[in-house]
Amino acid sequence: MKYALLTDWHVHTEGFLSKIPTDDCLYVWDFNRARGEQAAKKYNARYEENLEKVLADPAVEAVVIEAPTTMHTELILAAIAHGKHLFVDKPLAPTMTEALEIKAALEASSCRFVLSLESFISGSYRFVKDQIEAGTIGDVVSVYFRRAHGGVLHDWLPADWYDETQMGGVTLDLGCHGLAMLPYLCGKPTKVNAVMTQFGEKGMENNSTTVVSFENNAIGTAYTSFMTTVGENFLEVIGQHGSIQVFGNPDSPTGESIWIQSDLVEAYHEKTVIDGKTLAQQPYPIEVFSALVDDPTLPSVKEYDIDAAVELTWLIEQAYRSANEASINKA
Amino acid sequence: MKYALLTDWHVHTEGFLSKIPTDDCLYVWDFNRARGEQAAKKYNARYEENLEKVLADPAVEAVVIEAPTTMHTELILAAIAHGKHLFVDKPLAPTMTEALEIKAALEASSCRFVLSLESFISGSYRFVKDQIEAGTIGDVVSVYFRRAHGGVLHDWLPADWYDETQMGGVTLDLGCHGLAMLPYLCGKPTKVNAVMTQFGEKGMENNSTTVVSFENNAIGTAYTSFMTTVGENFLEVIGQHGSIQVFGNPDSPTGESIWIQSDLVEAYHEKTVIDGKTLAQQPYPIEVFSALVDDPTLPSVKEYDIDAAVELTWLIEQAYRSANEASINKA
Repeated sequence: MKYALLTDWHVHTEGFLSKIPTDDCLYVWDFNRARGEQAAKKYNARYEENLEKVLADPAVEAVVIEAPTTMHTELILAAIAHGKHLFVDKPLAPTMTEALEIKAALEASSCRFVLSLESFISGSYRFVKDQIEAGTIGDVVSVYFRRAHGGVLHDWLPADWYDETQMGGVTLDLGCHGLAMLPYLCGKPTKVNAVMTQFGEKGMENNSTTVVSFENNAIGTAYTSFMTTVGENFLEVIGQHGSIQVFGNPDSPTGESIWIQSDLVEAYHEKTVIDGKTLAQQPYPIEVFSALVDDPTLPSVKEYDIDAAVELTWLIEQAYRSANEASINKA
Repeated sequence: MKYALLTDWHVHTEGFLSKIPTDDCLYVWDFNRARGEQAAKKYNARYEENLEKVLADPAVEAVVIEAPTTMHTELILAAIAHGKHLFVDKPLAPTMTEALEIKAALEASSCRFVLSLESFISGSYRFVKDQIEAGTIGDVVSVYFRRAHGGVLHDWLPADWYDETQMGGVTLDLGCHGLAMLPYLCGKPTKVNAVMTQFGEKGMENNSTTVVSFENNAIGTAYTSFMTTVGENFLEVIGQHGSIQVFGNPDSPTGESIWIQSDLVEAYHEKTVIDGKTLAQQPYPIEVFSALVDDPTLPSVKEYDIDAAVELTWLIEQAYRSANEASINKA
């Protein structure tokens, strides 16, 4: 795949591009020239300050968008207009108006699309999904997902993360993983309620919980935070007849540990512990994207497709609306 | 302690009264005569259909209120008017208007008061509270509490549980444990958002999640359900520098297991597992009540006092208001 990197703004860029070392980065475009030139050197590409020139080059098959979320719509629509395939870091866009505009443009094109939701590489989460679909724990009644790190607590996030014109706080950033996981495991969402707080005064919420109800009456809760050193993820799914818990991260040295218990399946009548390392990890979204670009006959991957991306934007928009308007204050 | 039992409506009655076998039940009053007479036989008491007669008897020191929540205010105010001490099953009352009326009457009397929040008997939860106060895991950023059973799923709850004029669904009933735990661990609540669903059509919500923010910016989440066989409780507290998890129930054969990890305390740098059985269990609220009645010099116990009871009612009222009005519907 021959691609252009559209800004090196996101902290993920280097990690993701390292997963596709045999693909070819032709250009780096960045509104921050110094950052763009540095990235061009790193990825052995040409820095180009004129976006139109990058997109007009027929050698460029795809764009990898690692720009501020608030720039996504403009960049995506421009890339689609030039027939470029799209890898977009999460989330797609901050509002449904923009998300639906992107979806319409995408569907009128033949561009491939992948939203980077790298939580789904976890073999453990795939195992959970498979068990739900197999009915192992009965109908799902509750899902709880926690994903947090100390980016604000330890002040290692870039200054841009506190700029409202570029970002939207922890719910829109790290929170995407939980907000995408809930419908993945529970189905179609119906209602959203969120509570958000800010420790300190750097700007933007850095501690956030969103609760979502689903058509099947399950309730999903996603907690996310930039204010703790507790970086081990946690997922628990409660079914009518059993439960599954996943502790840890697929990429950490200790990996993931799964607990499963079910009244319905004899092998799991007692709580059983499964080492996540025994489950196959999925390719990273950027690897999936590279494969889709190389082979137009491959079907889209539903975890990363435009419908999942639009639904995630809907959840984000509703969460912020709820936190800002619908909360009930004691005072 | 010489007491009167005011209805045998609640499923807890027998379990609680068995904790105070040397106390003396003089009367059972119940609006359901058959149930009242049966209870009178069981507790070796007199059945009396005239409440006024029970309360007018100077031999009665205290009342144990196991009546429908919607009757609490009437019964409590009548008992206070006769100077009787009050043990009240959770919650105090369904609305703040009623809760504040009760508080005013109580404070103008010399009656002792205990709200039955039996989750607080757990030595593990006391351990968690102590660790938070000692700063072991740093400032709290998040608390998650799950408490559920299969009372609706397996249809073992009394028919009254589905009668809106007597009850209020799982949030008001089993949900009390989580809603009381959150301010116990996080402090003063500021905002409440809830999502509730109903599996089946028996009436009342039976699956419910309430999210609360606190003055210290912590966010607490309480999930409760009548729709699962997963009866093992779960509590997790995330601090800025560590975490504590509690799995299980103090009264179950396997008891509770605690995980604690902290960057601040050398003994807990690695995740440490503590057996809940090594921690002293607290007396049941009814035992505390019996002691308070017997010895007027004993101070109230803050976990069960009128301020905790009023705050719990506030949380319940806000949760229902949020679920009914403030949620955002996809349709």
